[in-house]
Amino acid sequence: MSLLVAMTVWHVEDWRARFAALLPELPIVTLGEPFDRRAVHYVASWKHPEGSLAGLPNLAAIFSLGAGVDHIFADSRLPQVPIARVVDPDLTTRMSEYVVLHCLSQLRQLPRYMAQQRAGIWEDDRNQPAAREVRVGVMGLGELGLDAVAKLRVVGFDVAGWSRSPKVIEGVPTYSGEAGMAEFLARTDILVCLVPLTPETRGMLNRALFAGLARDGRLGGPVLINAGRGGLQVEADILASLAAGELKAAVLDVFETEPLPQESPLWTHPAVTVTPHNAAMSAPETVAAQVAAQIRRLEAGEPLEHIVDPARGY
Amino acid sequence: MSLLVAMTVWHVEDWRARFAALLPELPIVTLGEPFDRRAVHYVASWKHPEGSLAGLPNLAAIFSLGAGVDHIFADSRLPQVPIARVVDPDLTTRMSEYVVLHCLSQLRQLPRYMAQQRAGIWEDDRNQPAAREVRVGVMGLGELGLDAVAKLRVVGFDVAGWSRSPKVIEGVPTYSGEAGMAEFLARTDILVCLVPLTPETRGMLNRALFAGLARDGRLGGPVLINAGRGGLQVEADILASLAAGELKAAVLDVFETEPLPQESPLWTHPAVTVTPHNAAMSAPETVAAQVAAQIRRLEAGEPLEHIVDPARGY
Ligand SMILES: NC(=O)c1ccc[n+]([C@@H]2O[C@H](COP(=O)([O-])OP(=O)(O)OC[C@H]3O[C@@H](n4cnc5c(N)ncnc54)[C@H](OP(=O)(O)O)[C@@H]3O)[C@@H](O)[C@H]2O)c1
Ligand SMILES: NC(=O)c1ccc[n+]([C@@H]2O[C@H](COP(=O)([O-])OP(=O)(O)OC[C@H]3O[C@@H](n4cnc5c(N)ncnc54)[C@H](OP(=O)(O)O)[C@@H]3O)[C@@H](O)[C@H]2O)c1
Repeated sequence: MSLLVAMTVWHVEDWRARFAALLPELPIVTLGEPFDRRAVHYVASWKHPEGSLAGLPNLAAIFSLGAGVDHIFADSRLPQVPIARVVDPDLTTRMSEYVVLHCLSQLRQLPRYMAQQRAGIWEDDRNQPAAREVRVGVMGLGELGLDAVAKLRVVGFDVAGWSRSPKVIEGVPTYSGEAGMAEFLARTDILVCLVPLTPETRGMLNRALFAGLARDGRLGGPVLINAGRGGLQVEADILASLAAGELKAAVLDVFETEPLPQESPLWTHPAVTVTPHNAAMSAPETVAAQVAAQIRRLEAGEPLEHIVDPARGY
Repeated sequence: MSLLVAMTVWHVEDWRARFAALLPELPIVTLGEPFDRRAVHYVASWKHPEGSLAGLPNLAAIFSLGAGVDHIFADSRLPQVPIARVVDPDLTTRMSEYVVLHCLSQLRQLPRYMAQQRAGIWEDDRNQPAAREVRVGVMGLGELGLDAVAKLRVVGFDVAGWSRSPKVIEGVPTYSGEAGMAEFLARTDILVCLVPLTPETRGMLNRALFAGLARDGRLGGPVLINAGRGGLQVEADILASLAAGELKAAVLDVFETEPLPQESPLWTHPAVTVTPHNAAMSAPETVAAQVAAQIRRLEAGEPLEHIVDPARGY
């Protein structure tokens, strides 16, 4: 019985060492070496190569080494076994750091004041709105979205949320599905996107959606913050909407292609903030410990936690 | 009976109009015109000229048009009447926006990532600490400091506080006075200064104090955030401590001289963020309404609110 560590990025030997330390009784194998395919009971995956998990007859579970599982469902020859993801309170907290930081930075015009400093200009804004005058709309009310909503409210923003299935959050207007979308967008000055990448959500951050955002807000135009996945956004549409004034600014942690190609106009656009897909990184030790705990759970005959639904894609 | 609006900055006619609208029965006079000094019962001040409030025999109260009163006590010929300041929940909320924004910006290295974007560099930091690993020390636990402490905690920081008199805050280590200073500084990675400017606090943000800050923190060196008053800081010492590595960065909203003179090296220092004394501005309407309410209170024989203590200077 063995654990296969399957990845195309990151340092596979570091992960092997982490799992070996936590699961001394379990042989750890990697795609880069010869191994007995019948012995593989578990896979730990981060962007494993297409088809590389086919032909593992005794596979019992696949563990995503991150919160997202789009990289797993991207494999058209994926075996039909339970797939579990990582849910890490530390990662959630870090994502909320990012979301609160960038909502406040947009509210308080940090890019403007940093540019003023570079130009030696001392000039304030007597019209500075307060957080309560700015409506933040959080798309995705899962582990990440719910924490962001709570913290944005404490800081003072006027927050609403949107998800697939209806949700009730005390004191927060919520909307769901296609039916709730238009109303949600129409009351949103800052759109924070924290949905997973699925066939349904791919490309949803497009010009038609941006055109539905509030135009009567205190920020002088709607702002997009995407820290979900790059596949959610149509970058050509972001640029077109910025040019057309349908978006005032965009803060992007994720991109259609990562690393963001040098020739992308997003790098130098004055209204775009680019961060290198680091809104929320889990400590590898935490992730490895969670996967090890899941394997022990299975071996003790207990059910897996944080299983995702292949039909929904998350 | 009249209200004297006494200021050297801002638009005195705007303030006259605001008070006239709220207190139609009360004549409003300004320093720039002839007026009957015996008729002046109230003064609304923002940086009134030295000595300009002497010789007002029927003066009953002075109202500061801001949260701070250092500009009033700066007058060596100040009449001995009650002095009240503005306490505005909206101003408090805005100050916390600023404090949370800049603590998160330092935590999440926003200046670094903005510089990387300008240089077209895609590079993350696998050692990024979480907020709980960074110790914020808030100096001043009054209206502003207490709100900042609460919000910084929600975002995840490890927060402590320091004030003149001892304070108890559930779950937050607190220190007071000279005696508690060294221990407070030694556990502080980000120092947030929200004390008033008084004879005791003038110049307290100096090299000796910076040298006492934590040197074993996760940010690679201590950070100063001063949103109190410029007179609290010794700018030459900030520059010397930055050069000596006793400070890693400084975020300054207030300065010894404002506007910050063009020749100040703070403008161009790569580790310094300059904002134009706009961390927290009250809406003039809110301030005027609060002063009007105080005058009505006095006229109804009720006590003033938010009186400051001339002996303490705040
Ligand atoms: N940038 C980064 O560093 C980073 C780090 C970690 C994670 N992420 C991304 O963040 C995503 C969200 O993480 P999470 O842990 O919060 O996921 P989660 O707990 O599964 O929550 C997903 C939320 O999105 C909603 N949703 C899914 N599909 C939808 C659809 N078609 N229409 C409307 N709403 C939909 C879900 O609605 P229901 O509530 O109705 O199910 C749920 O509220 C991850 O999938 C990952 O891609 C990014
Ligand atoms: N940058 C801006 O835009 C802006 C805007 C508004 C206000 N401010 C500044 O912020 C300051 C604080 O406002 P606030 O409303 O929070 O004032 P506050 O309610 O009077 O609180 C002042 C706090 O500072 C403490 N303190 C005073 N003198 C001290 C000393 N010598 N040693 C140690 N602690 C001392 C007090 O201790 P005790 O609790 O023991 O009394 C109290 O906790 C104002 O005075 C103003 O200068 C700046």
